[in-house]
Amino acid sequence: MAKEITSRSENYSQWYNDIVKKAGLADHSAVRGCMVIKPLGYAIWENMRDQLDKMFKDTGHVNAYFPLFIPKSFLSKEAKHVEGFAKECAVVTHHRLMNDPNGDGVVVDPSAKLEEELIVRPTSETIIWNTYKDWIQSYRDLPLLINQWANVVRWEMRTRPFLRTAEFLWQEGHTAHATKEEAEEEASLIHELYTRFLEDYAAIPILKGAKTPHERFAGAEETYTVEALMQDGKALQAGTSHFLGQNFAKAFEVKFATSDNKEEFVWATSWGVTTRMVGALVMTHSDDEGLIIPPKLAPNQVVIIPIPKPTPEILEVADKIKAELGAKGVRVKIDKDDKKRPGFKFAQHEMEGVPVRIGIGARDLAKNQIEIARRDTKEKSQIALDTVNDVVPKLLEEIQQNLFDKALKFREEHTTHVSTMDEFKSVLESKGGFVYAHWDGTTETEEKIKELTKATIRCIPLDFEAEEGTCILTGKPSKGKVVFAKAY
Amino acid sequence: MAKEITSRSENYSQWYNDIVKKAGLADHSAVRGCMVIKPLGYAIWENMRDQLDKMFKDTGHVNAYFPLFIPKSFLSKEAKHVEGFAKECAVVTHHRLMNDPNGDGVVVDPSAKLEEELIVRPTSETIIWNTYKDWIQSYRDLPLLINQWANVVRWEMRTRPFLRTAEFLWQEGHTAHATKEEAEEEASLIHELYTRFLEDYAAIPILKGAKTPHERFAGAEETYTVEALMQDGKALQAGTSHFLGQNFAKAFEVKFATSDNKEEFVWATSWGVTTRMVGALVMTHSDDEGLIIPPKLAPNQVVIIPIPKPTPEILEVADKIKAELGAKGVRVKIDKDDKKRPGFKFAQHEMEGVPVRIGIGARDLAKNQIEIARRDTKEKSQIALDTVNDVVPKLLEEIQQNLFDKALKFREEHTTHVSTMDEFKSVLESKGGFVYAHWDGTTETEEKIKELTKATIRCIPLDFEAEEGTCILTGKPSKGKVVFAKAY
Repeated sequence: MAKEITSRSENYSQWYNDIVKKAGLADHSAVRGCMVIKPLGYAIWENMRDQLDKMFKDTGHVNAYFPLFIPKSFLSKEAKHVEGFAKECAVVTHHRLMNDPNGDGVVVDPSAKLEEELIVRPTSETIIWNTYKDWIQSYRDLPLLINQWANVVRWEMRTRPFLRTAEFLWQEGHTAHATKEEAEEEASLIHELYTRFLEDYAAIPILKGAKTPHERFAGAEETYTVEALMQDGKALQAGTSHFLGQNFAKAFEVKFATSDNKEEFVWATSWGVTTRMVGALVMTHSDDEGLIIPPKLAPNQVVIIPIPKPTPEILEVADKIKAELGAKGVRVKIDKDDKKRPGFKFAQHEMEGVPVRIGIGARDLAKNQIEIARRDTKEKSQIALDTVNDVVPKLLEEIQQNLFDKALKFREEHTTHVSTMDEFKSVLESKGGFVYAHWDGTTETEEKIKELTKATIRCIPLDFEAEEGTCILTGKPSKGKVVFAKAY
Repeated sequence: MAKEITSRSENYSQWYNDIVKKAGLADHSAVRGCMVIKPLGYAIWENMRDQLDKMFKDTGHVNAYFPLFIPKSFLSKEAKHVEGFAKECAVVTHHRLMNDPNGDGVVVDPSAKLEEELIVRPTSETIIWNTYKDWIQSYRDLPLLINQWANVVRWEMRTRPFLRTAEFLWQEGHTAHATKEEAEEEASLIHELYTRFLEDYAAIPILKGAKTPHERFAGAEETYTVEALMQDGKALQAGTSHFLGQNFAKAFEVKFATSDNKEEFVWATSWGVTTRMVGALVMTHSDDEGLIIPPKLAPNQVVIIPIPKPTPEILEVADKIKAELGAKGVRVKIDKDDKKRPGFKFAQHEMEGVPVRIGIGARDLAKNQIEIARRDTKEKSQIALDTVNDVVPKLLEEIQQNLFDKALKFREEHTTHVSTMDEFKSVLESKGGFVYAHWDGTTETEEKIKELTKATIRCIPLDFEAEEGTCILTGKPSKGKVVFAKAY
């Protein structure tokens, strides 16, 4: 099985596609740019969703659900917003098909044309703020801390499974606040929460920062981003949290009475992470043998393989291990398939990234021991049967930590400070990664650098250090370095 | 607050709309026929989803996700299917907007017309079976037991929150099997699982049966249904499970090699329940004071109200109760809002259907007691503080059982056997409910009876009793009674 994967060094992009396909994460569909998320890919997404959902709820957020469709006129109400989304959206124009009068099959019924076209939501600020207008009258109605789990559609021309698809799954938080400070705090809280989730659960080290005005969300006053670094040295934006100011409140006339009875526009945030995180997880941890999933997000954390076959004696031991580890919250699968050989199963579970493999054979059992193997380092060892309950939970923690440490080390090795354009280009061409460089603060320079090098400003880092310097392109003064990278 | 609700006897339909609105379950949206599911309505749906999802997984199913869009030509591949869905679907024809050359705003960009129109999925059999073609080659690939949680769109002309909306949320299971028997067993298993969920969790008594050929799902060979009875004597179809035979396998040419190496078409089922269940839950249990939610699906099972205000002393006791009940798996909310009076809170939580209310006042506390009230019967009592941990879980079980018993009693009182058309009409006009009557087995008679009385055949009951008789309309022979009702 493993042989079927292209190696990272040979072709990183093909390696990623191979893993997505061979590990059974996703499949192409008959609809341009839309993927089918297969059971393993979906199970990882479910684990991400459940954990994030808990974090949202623990910080006072509730879920709701808003319509899939947005009336066309709503998009236009916020000027930058429509500019950002109108060019890549799916437009519903009719509500009925009819039999083709010229033959078989069905055609659009021209008499069923909608008065106003509907846009399949690319994001829901407009429909939600149109609704908030009815929900918010007074400061007593605030804050409104609402999230939704939904599908959205953006008609992207170049798509890749998980990383960029026409339809994707996400959560989008939309909060309403009485003051600017409170909305800013909310945007920062979520920025921190995304970071904690990605680092503690997905084991992906995060560079936190703010986007430049040019890279901001269409309609936002500030966009915070969580940036990750992939193994090919390219950055990946894993989530964003926006402070929207009063832009959407003004566009949809959402005002509230303050406690001293003045009328003011409401302050807003929005924030989202998507199925793209599954792609980030694959690209951060996996190797040339297949997928590697951090234990905390792995659908199965342990797989038990009877050797060579699932005999009653072996299954009794396996069932006992599964029950005891299960009681400790460990997710264990016993591979009882008797049509496949152990070697095949080893390769399959390696490809699918199960963190820990336990092999149980009759000979080992006679010595009261089993074989345990970890997916990340591929180390194997024999352990005494009665230590399994202690060893496995510790091993899972160790693997989780090791994956994070390894990714962090990679990022540190691929983070470079430069002071000239030549250095900048040379780093980008040789090892890639995050490149700290001085920038004069203009969109013009930002675009020019992108044109010359394909690198974009990933963020103005949150731990931005004041440092006098000169822009690598224009030589104009700069007050500190920002972070560039080529990106997905 | 309660006064704002129309009573059931005055106008049942308005009563339902009032509860949906006043309890904060859903709201209208700017998009025709689409609702906004508000936080309380969504939290009930989440509880339904989580429980069903567990039941699906416990029986070997896995989740996946298929595209929102279906190429128009796919719908036509199964003749009955297209007939059933083409007349009420949202059609995407373009993928871009542009600035209106004649003014402000945006218009559809005529140059961005799709080669083939896309249908927003009304159900996913076609796109899924087109995918299964690539996933199934051999009997080793079967069974395929896949479910998806998704939104679907059917362009209904008359909509009501939860009961019938243009967009709704649901789960749709799509399974593939090597034999007819196995697929039939799967359809029955899910039928039974839906029944268990609705009875044990939603406390809704279920009449199990099969649909007549006329009422079957478009493309099915057998449709099993779970029918519930609402308080106005009208039936509501709460879910369906379909045996699809080889219809979709033939339409999409999905064949497999059997173990003795013959080539055969795959056997299929599909099955679904929707956000409609939230409407069924409201209509089955609620009263003229507001919503009543069965404890097992209630987002908050207990609300604690400090009387008259949340003092530190009262909150200390409340926090302790919440922690202790929480450890037993009881979901408790403390209403700490100090801007609202207890009377207002009582009315609000009554409206929102919280099963148990605990009032904690200083005077009661001095006597080491608290007040406990149940939403279903509105009984109140004082109990000793140190008995709360025992009393509340038992009370929740009692309420759950009482709601089911009450609904079952109502159904039994509204189930009638008739032998003539006059009796039939008279029962329908007087008390409604399920009416058992002989039918000659033809679609013609079924349609005629509907035309005359608005009643439809809800199902051929699973416990169908062989009984010679004559059709109430035509006098032709019948082998047993089927169940009629007016329905949502």
